[in-house]
Amino acid sequence: MVPRYARPAMTAIWEPEARYKIWFEIEAHATQKLADLGVVPQSGAKALWDWWQTNPAIDVAAIDAKEAILKHDVIAFLDWVAEQVGPEARFMHQGMTSSDVLDTTLAVQLARASDLLLEDMDALLAAIHRRAEEHRYTPTIGRSHGIHAEPTTFGLKLAQAYAEFDRCRARLVAARAEIATCAISGAVGTFANIDPSVEEYVAEKLGLAVEPVSTQVIPRDRHAAYFSTLAVIASSIERLAVEIRHLQRTEVLEAEEYFSPGQKGSSAMPHKRNPVLTENLTGQARMIRSYAMPALENVALWHERDISHSSVERFIGPDATITLDFALARLTMVVDKLLIYPERMQKNLDRMGGLVHSQRVLLALTQAGVTRDNAYRLVQRNAMKVWESDGQLSLLELLKADEEVTAALTPAQLEDKFNLDFHFKHVDTIFARVFPQG
Amino acid sequence: MVPRYARPAMTAIWEPEARYKIWFEIEAHATQKLADLGVVPQSGAKALWDWWQTNPAIDVAAIDAKEAILKHDVIAFLDWVAEQVGPEARFMHQGMTSSDVLDTTLAVQLARASDLLLEDMDALLAAIHRRAEEHRYTPTIGRSHGIHAEPTTFGLKLAQAYAEFDRCRARLVAARAEIATCAISGAVGTFANIDPSVEEYVAEKLGLAVEPVSTQVIPRDRHAAYFSTLAVIASSIERLAVEIRHLQRTEVLEAEEYFSPGQKGSSAMPHKRNPVLTENLTGQARMIRSYAMPALENVALWHERDISHSSVERFIGPDATITLDFALARLTMVVDKLLIYPERMQKNLDRMGGLVHSQRVLLALTQAGVTRDNAYRLVQRNAMKVWESDGQLSLLELLKADEEVTAALTPAQLEDKFNLDFHFKHVDTIFARVFPQG
Amino acid sequence: MVPRYARPAMTAIWEPEARYKIWFEIEAHATQKLADLGVVPQSGAKALWDWWQTNPAIDVAAIDAKEAILKHDVIAFLDWVAEQVGPEARFMHQGMTSSDVLDTTLAVQLARASDLLLEDMDALLAAIHRRAEEHRYTPTIGRSHGIHAEPTTFGLKLAQAYAEFDRCRARLVAARAEIATCAISGAVGTFANIDPSVEEYVAEKLGLAVEPVSTQVIPRDRHAAYFSTLAVIASSIERLAVEIRHLQRTEVLEAEEYFSPGQKGSSAMPHKRNPVLTENLTGQARMIRSYAMPALENVALWHERDISHSSVERFIGPDATITLDFALARLTMVVDKLLIYPERMQKNLDRMGGLVHSQRVLLALTQAGVTRDNAYRLVQRNAMKVWESDGQLSLLELLKADEEVTAALTPAQLEDKFNLDFHFKHVDTIFARVFPQG
Amino acid sequence: MVPRYARPAMTAIWEPEARYKIWFEIEAHATQKLADLGVVPQSGAKALWDWWQTNPAIDVAAIDAKEAILKHDVIAFLDWVAEQVGPEARFMHQGMTSSDVLDTTLAVQLARASDLLLEDMDALLAAIHRRAEEHRYTPTIGRSHGIHAEPTTFGLKLAQAYAEFDRCRARLVAARAEIATCAISGAVGTFANIDPSVEEYVAEKLGLAVEPVSTQVIPRDRHAAYFSTLAVIASSIERLAVEIRHLQRTEVLEAEEYFSPGQKGSSAMPHKRNPVLTENLTGQARMIRSYAMPALENVALWHERDISHSSVERFIGPDATITLDFALARLTMVVDKLLIYPERMQKNLDRMGGLVHSQRVLLALTQAGVTRDNAYRLVQRNAMKVWESDGQLSLLELLKADEEVTAALTPAQLEDKFNLDFHFKHVDTIFARVFPQG
Repeated sequence: MVPRYARPAMTAIWEPEARYKIWFEIEAHATQKLADLGVVPQSGAKALWDWWQTNPAIDVAAIDAKEAILKHDVIAFLDWVAEQVGPEARFMHQGMTSSDVLDTTLAVQLARASDLLLEDMDALLAAIHRRAEEHRYTPTIGRSHGIHAEPTTFGLKLAQAYAEFDRCRARLVAARAEIATCAISGAVGTFANIDPSVEEYVAEKLGLAVEPVSTQVIPRDRHAAYFSTLAVIASSIERLAVEIRHLQRTEVLEAEEYFSPGQKGSSAMPHKRNPVLTENLTGQARMIRSYAMPALENVALWHERDISHSSVERFIGPDATITLDFALARLTMVVDKLLIYPERMQKNLDRMGGLVHSQRVLLALTQAGVTRDNAYRLVQRNAMKVWESDGQLSLLELLKADEEVTAALTPAQLEDKFNLDFHFKHVDTIFARVFPQG
Repeated sequence: MVPRYARPAMTAIWEPEARYKIWFEIEAHATQKLADLGVVPQSGAKALWDWWQTNPAIDVAAIDAKEAILKHDVIAFLDWVAEQVGPEARFMHQGMTSSDVLDTTLAVQLARASDLLLEDMDALLAAIHRRAEEHRYTPTIGRSHGIHAEPTTFGLKLAQAYAEFDRCRARLVAARAEIATCAISGAVGTFANIDPSVEEYVAEKLGLAVEPVSTQVIPRDRHAAYFSTLAVIASSIERLAVEIRHLQRTEVLEAEEYFSPGQKGSSAMPHKRNPVLTENLTGQARMIRSYAMPALENVALWHERDISHSSVERFIGPDATITLDFALARLTMVVDKLLIYPERMQKNLDRMGGLVHSQRVLLALTQAGVTRDNAYRLVQRNAMKVWESDGQLSLLELLKADEEVTAALTPAQLEDKFNLDFHFKHVDTIFARVFPQG
Repeated sequence: MVPRYARPAMTAIWEPEARYKIWFEIEAHATQKLADLGVVPQSGAKALWDWWQTNPAIDVAAIDAKEAILKHDVIAFLDWVAEQVGPEARFMHQGMTSSDVLDTTLAVQLARASDLLLEDMDALLAAIHRRAEEHRYTPTIGRSHGIHAEPTTFGLKLAQAYAEFDRCRARLVAARAEIATCAISGAVGTFANIDPSVEEYVAEKLGLAVEPVSTQVIPRDRHAAYFSTLAVIASSIERLAVEIRHLQRTEVLEAEEYFSPGQKGSSAMPHKRNPVLTENLTGQARMIRSYAMPALENVALWHERDISHSSVERFIGPDATITLDFALARLTMVVDKLLIYPERMQKNLDRMGGLVHSQRVLLALTQAGVTRDNAYRLVQRNAMKVWESDGQLSLLELLKADEEVTAALTPAQLEDKFNLDFHFKHVDTIFARVFPQG
Repeated sequence: MVPRYARPAMTAIWEPEARYKIWFEIEAHATQKLADLGVVPQSGAKALWDWWQTNPAIDVAAIDAKEAILKHDVIAFLDWVAEQVGPEARFMHQGMTSSDVLDTTLAVQLARASDLLLEDMDALLAAIHRRAEEHRYTPTIGRSHGIHAEPTTFGLKLAQAYAEFDRCRARLVAARAEIATCAISGAVGTFANIDPSVEEYVAEKLGLAVEPVSTQVIPRDRHAAYFSTLAVIASSIERLAVEIRHLQRTEVLEAEEYFSPGQKGSSAMPHKRNPVLTENLTGQARMIRSYAMPALENVALWHERDISHSSVERFIGPDATITLDFALARLTMVVDKLLIYPERMQKNLDRMGGLVHSQRVLLALTQAGVTRDNAYRLVQRNAMKVWESDGQLSLLELLKADEEVTAALTPAQLEDKFNLDFHFKHVDTIFARVFPQG
């Protein structure tokens, strides 16, 4: 975790106090169910919840001090709780293993992190939607291979981004379900010393599903699927970030990251306004993506469990979710405030002297009876002049002056082929497919 | 693709002839719809389908020869088809781009590959299910950290594998839906020269969903999600493969890959029977996993599209699906024929002199009124003797001879704590959670 | 391996016949040394070499047929050789294991592959060098963040690429040394049944170093280092490919991949000339990079060896080297034939109205006694006008007309600050650092 | 960075104060050289160094507060220094860019981190060496595929580990040289406003090499090579960690991680002593390995530079070096204190009833004139009985009782083939190859 790429709400999920609170709730819920089953006295559960009602502060330092001696984090915590609650606390943790607590806690943390990420994605989707509507019909050149291809609208560019993040949102909902499970199944997961109904009870209280079969640990294919999903989302962030970086290039300059009035891009060069936020996002995407690899390697634990996954998760649990949360928020801000320059888009569209319409003229000539070969030759000989003039000449004017062309098409017909709006007749169709209606 | 790790049905999907057949179907369906819309004559579509009815062979070499000159694979193909069909073929491909054909074809190929993979997974699940039922109550030692922990059953080990692959199957169904989309939207995806209803028609004919917004290409976050899912499945294959490799270790030998009667593990050492199939699967899992990375890097194409994804997909499209198909089939065979040795499992279970029951004695002593500290001390002093004897002494016998212990628990009560069946009382509960009922 | 991304010399290294030839040479050299040691009769070695002198064809199909029965590739090969050579062949392979042959063969193959790759890099370096000298003083705008920064030369861009590939070459030399080792140490590597001098002899004959300690297999950290090095080289290929893709963008167009006279970028749009080769290279770089991951995971073999590395190497051995060989050759061709447009570079340099010189004016004003704050204000107020005019106004002209500026600097002094050559005074220094002298 | 996997000396390198101190030194050295060149007055350099002589505390909070306003870390730092030093500080940073400071600082940090890592590796090598000598002749079974193969010694296992880490050390020395370069070349790296001799001077003062050609940034292929090297080292750590995990398995138990006297493996089961340290190292290795991927993706910066590498390096710079430092130290401790059980090794060696010697009997029979087929049959029929008895029968005794065998070999000859020492005759040869002599 890099502090400058972290926001407090997400960071809080991963702090020791938050973790200990989840530990307590798992233990207290389990004790309650054990009491209902008659395995332990009701007084044991009551004592825990009574203390909890007092909203006690968790003394992280005291627990750490115990762990330093005991070398066991869960036992250290239980000891500390017992000191606070008194002898009735001895009924906690009956028949459970540390992993029951640790893995279920990770499930709660990742589920909460996912909820924040889903909020982030909703905000991002809203920002993209707003800007897409704003520029639904703003003409801009579509580019394949970085080369001018045919016209599109800036709204369509954003519609694609919306659809992509909408898919990412659905993937995240599915990924959240992957990891939101509760396991309270005891050593090697046989429920030998704890009834399965305890697991069901705790799961319900924590808003988790029951893990159908655990082996002391929750199986790590779930986490592999989860972090792989974050990697896909990061890649989509990278795509939009790269798009904006391209648009801000000096020669293109169709959009720019917002600069605050007093901000300086460079101490020496007043013209420097760099897309540093989206470059920064590009790097963050690389990191989030990389966290999928160790998560995938974590799957093949030995037999019922080993603990090699644990050190990995101490890194990627916080790092992947905190960084993704930051990245989504940063991207939302970038989209929200993006400076968009329709005039420059039009200027770029026009800079090729109308070459972007060459395909339509070609089709019109063939429909007017010219053979395809001939039509291609006619268009090409004029297009090449425009190309060689670097867009100083106009394709339309040259065509109008070409007798072989005008033998097939009238000036009015030719002009019609240079109508930008032709390209936009299905913009509404696409918007209707992509955006929520109503 | 490594030929020895390839099976014909999957390989066939990726062969040139199969690809060209899909190309033709896309073109012919699109032409049919264009004819229905009145954009091209019905005779154009009819000519294509009439020719197709003759079940013509695709002359891959002839098409390749054209491509060598034209340097454009789709145009080469269209030219060749036109030669076969005659002049009516000129109505093909109206308003379409090559990407419409190429990306939709990849969708069909990956969807078909997924169908084979789903069949593979069904076979694997069936094999695991059968062996799990067979060994539902076969006692075996559960191991955490590679160290004996508490008893479980071999059926439970397989139940975990079943649940894991069942999740993988659901993930694959979702991943198949990710990539099974059709895009026929023309240059930069605006439908400027082709009606969206053509896309809808072709999609329906090919069993695909409509891509809501394409930008000449189908967005690659879909493929990133797809290949990441294959990576997760590969990791689950690795987990089961590693489990079997562990079980076959000389000192463990609770299970073995099947050896055909005449097979030799080593020309020199008759005792050598190596888990080479699961080791082989471990390596294949590493490969399939690695293909997720370039798929994730493919997402951030430039603007409406660049073609950097293409060379990646020429590798990983075939390699990931062919290798996973092979790996699933190999694993199914391994599970199906796995030699399972219950006697050895029992022997290993017993080799620690009953130490695996120490926790139950501890709990029983505390329930009989001994303080926890004292109970631990009593169990430990006997357990340590067993441990030091490397399991030659019996914990039960030592406890029966320990007067402080027998002051709290009768011999019969002690014997009850060494009852293996105690650990298996919830095996049916777990099986009911995991396996399909009925 | 994708055939279209493969060249014959590299592919040949990985073909069965080539592999069998190396197998034979290892066996024959080892038999020779065993004969010299008196372990086997000299006639045994002589019979092998006599047969080899006849330049016999390797009957791959016959060997494959044997392997199908024996399920052991090395034994199948030895049997086939024995049939050709006669009874004297029985002295082959004394005290050796299959791994001795297989691992040493992989070393020979990777060393040969490295030699081809080094030739590729030499060709690439020569091409870059030639073009760098050609454009040593061709002015072009340097860009940070995709934004115009300060002038540089196109030669300097290429000098950086040269230095980078020169480092890559040195890394490849080191990586080749990593994997060019010979192990002939028998089962679990103890030399129990074969004298270490055999290993030394064979190593010398094959141009390999002796593996100091093998454990039946050559340790895979060597291969991990090797394939990681290829990944770094691939990333450098990607860097230069991305640079060219940027330069070819429509709005930039300072360089273009060569187009053959008859080539068409698009059937419809004559202006389309796409950087497809460098996009293709970008994708190939992603693949080569990804192969490092399974190579790294191969390191942790179990105990003295398992065979999980083998299936990985059947993929990445050929795929990484063949693809990198192709990519280096393709990049060399791209660089060699790159269309470079100095006029367009100059035009782009000038398009900001001289803003790229603002830093020098700022420094000159401060050196002339203006406070830094004041100087910044003076430059900025003129620079902003130029910026807002999109480069239509000239910074020099505005400064000359600004009385506060001219109070500090004369017109001649101002003009001097707009001298491009100022930026190039150390071009030769850098060239002398980078390029081989003499 | 996970605090529990961090050691103070390495962490200190990455703390803000350490970074700012390097920044100051770069600026002060550069100012000194500029003074020597006559570009700035000597008083400028003197003022800086005079202040530095007072060993001033770096007020990180004050600098942070400035950055919050200025949004530029280097300017914030320079302002703060100027406040401390007074007006003479205005001569700092003349002609330099922020990247000159930042990239050279990263070089210093990575070089220092490498020095710590080299010390770590020396300690690890020393520990392995000591234990290897201690067990140079301790017999143990060599295992291929996890299956007993032939005898080796525990010292040889450790000799392999030594050789592997010795290679890793050499790789790290090379990787350190990759990143230990200094760039002070100004905007886009042309030295337009700063003389190359300043770079040379600062490089020498900081113990760095001169970067031959930078483009405002040091090229990131260097860092890709560096972090890839750390990934290889991590994989070698994983290999030794996995070996120890295998050796500690209950059924093997040939070695164990050290347990302190009072330590408890489990609150319930006194027999539980888990290899948690090496499992923990396995997970850390996965993390360090994963950091190579974003480092490789960082290479292809746009044009002269973008800043996407920066956010990646804020993660992996500290995380990779801190975690590797911790992992090397932890592994050193594990090796140093490893509990090694020669008796158990011997017991495991013997558990197969002498089967591990079957190859030697086979060879002896053939040398005694028995055909290979017959010899194999004779050995196999006795070996199979041993195998089926799970090692309760003795191969030697059975052979002695087999008349067909004794017709060829005397009992004494047979006994000779069961001599363990036969396998160890080249142990010294291998040790001489691997370990430093003297």
